[in-house]
Amino acid sequence: MNAPPFSQRQSIEQVEEGVELAPKFDEHGLIPVVTTDITSGEVLMHAYMNAEALAQTITLGEAVYWSRSRKCLWHKGATSGLVQRVREMRSDDDQDCVWLRVDVQGGASCHVGYRSCFYRAVPVGDRAGQPLGFTETQKVFDPKAVYGDAPNPTQL
Amino acid sequence: MNAPPFSQRQSIEQVEEGVELAPKFDEHGLIPVVTTDITSGEVLMHAYMNAEALAQTITLGEAVYWSRSRKCLWHKGATSGLVQRVREMRSDDDQDCVWLRVDVQGGASCHVGYRSCFYRAVPVGDRAGQPLGFTETQKVFDPKAVYGDAPNPTQL
Repeated sequence: MNAPPFSQRQSIEQVEEGVELAPKFDEHGLIPVVTTDITSGEVLMHAYMNAEALAQTITLGEAVYWSRSRKCLWHKGATSGLVQRVREMRSDDDQDCVWLRVDVQGGASCHVGYRSCFYRAVPVGDRAGQPLGFTETQKVFDPKAVYGDAPNPTQL
Repeated sequence: MNAPPFSQRQSIEQVEEGVELAPKFDEHGLIPVVTTDITSGEVLMHAYMNAEALAQTITLGEAVYWSRSRKCLWHKGATSGLVQRVREMRSDDDQDCVWLRVDVQGGASCHVGYRSCFYRAVPVGDRAGQPLGFTETQKVFDPKAVYGDAPNPTQL
């Protein structure tokens, strides 16, 4: 697979107003990624890519992340079948974040079994301090059936 | 302002399936935040909060971030007037990310002057390697008029 090369970051004008992809990776070599559903607009997940994952995602047109818990490239859906086809990728102003708009085969993106990882609302303002409220009441799949005894990626 | 206390992270079940807010801050004391427009669903920006910013956002009902470039609390809109009123806040499965759904007074969230920070598309698949394409053709405001000579937050 021929990964597209990234441009060097040379000026603020180039990064903010230019047409070259010159991503900024953090001190761990990672860039945060926001993934939304192309149809509903819902934020499905927040994850990270290293340069190789970003290059593969661009070339393949399917989301490939870097798993911080497993420390390896993570072609989303390789285990679960819930592949994310990239319908649009966007970069932000200073190019230190990527937004993916995806179609999700299977309709779920969360390892807990929900459609979105963001299945709980945090009360704000007058309701600050009240318990979180679930925004999804039913899981789309049974994580035990899909992932078996694979280690849970959530870290305390 | 009485900031709500956060719960201690004690078990994966509590963090993933519970109703307590037990956020995980990274080694810099920060948690990433995805901010979308309540109406269009568009991702407006990706930023960070420390514990104090998160607590203030919850209590105030307006987005307060931590500025990594200026190293201070950043009540969005204090300079530009483009306040983000939080209509819904969500936490993700492992509670290491926050999603804000906001109303933006003034209709813009990007310091470059665009509505969204994500105003450029990255070609993928068959079009990999082609130049970025602008998704917004006109700025909503003139950053020079709004921010004057304040230092640009973009870092190379």
